[in-house]
Amino acid sequence: MRMKTKLLDVHSSRFLVFINEKDARETKLHPNDLVKIETGKKTLYGEVVIDNANIQPGEIGLSKDFLTVHNFSQGEIINIVPAGTPESVRYIKKKMYGAKLKKVEIESIIKDIVDRKLRDIEISAFVTALEINGLDMDEIATLTVAMAETGDMLDIDRKPIMDVHSIGGVPGNKTNMLVVPIVAAAGLTIPKTSSRAITSAAGTADVMEVLADVSLSLEEIKRIVEKIGACIVWGGALNLAPADDITIHAERVLSIDPRGLMLASIMSKKYAMGSQYVLIDIPMGKGVKVENVEEARSLARDFIELGKRLGQYVEVAITYGGQPVGHSVGPALEAKEALETLISGKGPGSLVEKATGLAGILLEMGGVAPAGMGKKMAREILESGKAYEKMKEIIAEQGGDPNIKPEDIQIGDKTFTFAAETGGYVTQIDNKAITTIARQAGAPEDKGAGVYLHVKVGEKVKEGQPLFTIHAESEVRLEQAIIAARRSEPIRIEGMVLQRIGNI
Amino acid sequence: MRMKTKLLDVHSSRFLVFINEKDARETKLHPNDLVKIETGKKTLYGEVVIDNANIQPGEIGLSKDFLTVHNFSQGEIINIVPAGTPESVRYIKKKMYGAKLKKVEIESIIKDIVDRKLRDIEISAFVTALEINGLDMDEIATLTVAMAETGDMLDIDRKPIMDVHSIGGVPGNKTNMLVVPIVAAAGLTIPKTSSRAITSAAGTADVMEVLADVSLSLEEIKRIVEKIGACIVWGGALNLAPADDITIHAERVLSIDPRGLMLASIMSKKYAMGSQYVLIDIPMGKGVKVENVEEARSLARDFIELGKRLGQYVEVAITYGGQPVGHSVGPALEAKEALETLISGKGPGSLVEKATGLAGILLEMGGVAPAGMGKKMAREILESGKAYEKMKEIIAEQGGDPNIKPEDIQIGDKTFTFAAETGGYVTQIDNKAITTIARQAGAPEDKGAGVYLHVKVGEKVKEGQPLFTIHAESEVRLEQAIIAARRSEPIRIEGMVLQRIGNI
Repeated sequence: MRMKTKLLDVHSSRFLVFINEKDARETKLHPNDLVKIETGKKTLYGEVVIDNANIQPGEIGLSKDFLTVHNFSQGEIINIVPAGTPESVRYIKKKMYGAKLKKVEIESIIKDIVDRKLRDIEISAFVTALEINGLDMDEIATLTVAMAETGDMLDIDRKPIMDVHSIGGVPGNKTNMLVVPIVAAAGLTIPKTSSRAITSAAGTADVMEVLADVSLSLEEIKRIVEKIGACIVWGGALNLAPADDITIHAERVLSIDPRGLMLASIMSKKYAMGSQYVLIDIPMGKGVKVENVEEARSLARDFIELGKRLGQYVEVAITYGGQPVGHSVGPALEAKEALETLISGKGPGSLVEKATGLAGILLEMGGVAPAGMGKKMAREILESGKAYEKMKEIIAEQGGDPNIKPEDIQIGDKTFTFAAETGGYVTQIDNKAITTIARQAGAPEDKGAGVYLHVKVGEKVKEGQPLFTIHAESEVRLEQAIIAARRSEPIRIEGMVLQRIGNI
Repeated sequence: MRMKTKLLDVHSSRFLVFINEKDARETKLHPNDLVKIETGKKTLYGEVVIDNANIQPGEIGLSKDFLTVHNFSQGEIINIVPAGTPESVRYIKKKMYGAKLKKVEIESIIKDIVDRKLRDIEISAFVTALEINGLDMDEIATLTVAMAETGDMLDIDRKPIMDVHSIGGVPGNKTNMLVVPIVAAAGLTIPKTSSRAITSAAGTADVMEVLADVSLSLEEIKRIVEKIGACIVWGGALNLAPADDITIHAERVLSIDPRGLMLASIMSKKYAMGSQYVLIDIPMGKGVKVENVEEARSLARDFIELGKRLGQYVEVAITYGGQPVGHSVGPALEAKEALETLISGKGPGSLVEKATGLAGILLEMGGVAPAGMGKKMAREILESGKAYEKMKEIIAEQGGDPNIKPEDIQIGDKTFTFAAETGGYVTQIDNKAITTIARQAGAPEDKGAGVYLHVKVGEKVKEGQPLFTIHAESEVRLEQAIIAARRSEPIRIEGMVLQRIGNI
């Protein structure tokens, strides 16, 4: 049926197509049906909403989200027809039943995700089937390339291209906010794209966004990186492996992160960015994604093997993830701590040790530091202020204020502090509980929300001493976070008295 | 935040909550977020759409679907707050990882589905996890009762209450359109609720809807059944086990039907209807849900065992499902064939044999026919016209025209007939292919769409003789069905010449 577009100031992350009831009846369309939209140039897919309030017969209302991705002008004539069941649903079911998927089948699923032919139900079934039945290395390599090639690719005129990625799971991991400027200050090229938080309280993109714009175009990135050697941007704004941004939504709702999809998600972006040397940080510890060394090694092998198939040289660092990195968890709190560390060249041991360790490996991989000397060189770059200078360049190029001071950063002003009910030593900080509290407080969407830890594992505390403070931007969120904190045991304190035997 | 309701003439099957961008920013709500809506009396959940076109700050737009289920008046003051992640997501994940769910966990999932706290992503993950990991009998019994008790229950003042259900999968199975009037004509009580098609081209409710209203209230059903002993209605209109109608949507999109969920779906409705004697029809054959006798027997045992736990007496009939029942597939085509058979007392052998066989078992279970005599009695009731008289009563009570003639029923007038390319015997009719063709033609939503089979297995055909006709209501759908038919081999013809040896 031929219809006239009407642009609606309506926003949903779905591609909604508003039609009048009369047209719906005529075209045999029902609410939530998938429709195919044909213009002279392209074929798109969307989901039907019956709307008699705004839409006259003969009109088709398109939501903003549609228009963000595809250009339409008011009054453009388009053709809409019901879309049948996408072929790729069969391949999703094949994976449900545990079969190995062929190259064309994986490509079909990814293409249909990018084309929006698959919606929440199918995408959720796909990620759930992957979580349960997994993917082998052939499938993962195909998935990675398919995800990269259905999006844009970057070609930077510098060599070698370095990259670093933390698989996440450890709260407060603002490490790459230090690693990137250190590596770039040494003259290497590192166009860092990051994702937003999936199950954590803040991804590097969420943290960087506190200081500068992270939604840059590929052209802007190319220009910036060719000029100053680095950037820290959000991959999701880039149409790099766009299927990933869609599947991540379902993963986030379900709080799952299937291994094959995680590998493909990370490596497809590296592949699309043209990275040649990739360092993967696998935090290991209780309450993070990888809890033991066997699992960490197995994952490391997968990354290295996948890199080989993609023509990339991959190294893996297994790092300590038993408690949060530094003291802060949540976008603004983490940005503040990272900035303080860059300015002073000093900061919490857990943050500085990790950042210089990872940066050191990259300096060696990139050939600017002799073997075994990378970490020392990284520390010198940090302490000398060169890393801070590079970070100022990055912030400035990304449209932020390079002279921003840590105290300028807005932290959620609705706060609640938990104090020690008894004195003793901090024996454990529960990563999952801290993440849950920060998320309940509103992180990562509410930038100022999160948790500030006044103590770390091994420290001695007195009764009544503050342990951690929750920051939120609204009272409702603060309440939710307090409830979450009371339900769990985020910080465990044990007295040193292990045994006390009576007066025999 | 306190807001004023505005009723919107917008229809989607989701519970959409439209708010202005300004309020969204203030309440930290984002598109597609889950929100909790509190009125003086109840707490509801919905999904955020940002709408600056219709909604002013301070207003909250509610879609029709919301209002169908919950009453709101224009201008009512309600409170909305962001809803956190529902607890039941954890239990869904537990099932993903293969664990057995506890009673409270299953109850929590079902309650959250009914309350609309879980949406497509979570529900799809749930059905996918069930499809892969299954449920044991404890879980199924709990699920069944939870599904029944979160909805309405019927209490009919007649005894015994009979019920029949086909688990479906065989195309053209309009059998219960005959069984119900036969059983009721013998004086038994049979309040038949059916579902619409899940993966087939027509459910009994879709077929009956061609002749009468199937969306009745529980009060109307009680009145009708107490008066004439029978009804054939759509369970989905009834708020009987409402969770089922929601999960079925995801199952339909994915074309899956996990066993535990199927058992609970069927039996929860029988439980809610107060049925005491239940006959389950399990069609068996190539291309239906149950392909071999071991599987049929295992399923039969599950039904009987589940019935015991629910206090119901269950018998199971394993029936021939190797090809479609009768000649017609699709709501209107099937209604026509059922009506012709009821009027004349005669019809296609596959339909009459099956209907009288099942009705006979019910007559024996209900104690109105001596053991071994049920089928004979059922056939007499059909041939005598008593079944047709009862069907006319049912149609009339359900607001249809009891004097409707088969030729009055509107069949899709966009048709295409496939003819035999070679002469020979029909050796196979592919159930799945026939279903796919009928669905591509528009069934079950388009009532007149479907497939009419001119031949059945074992018949001899000549070259050029019509094999089957596709009926559709639109050219687009007809085209799609023709493509589907060409891609498959719906009817296989083989010559009788098995070997031909030259003139030696």
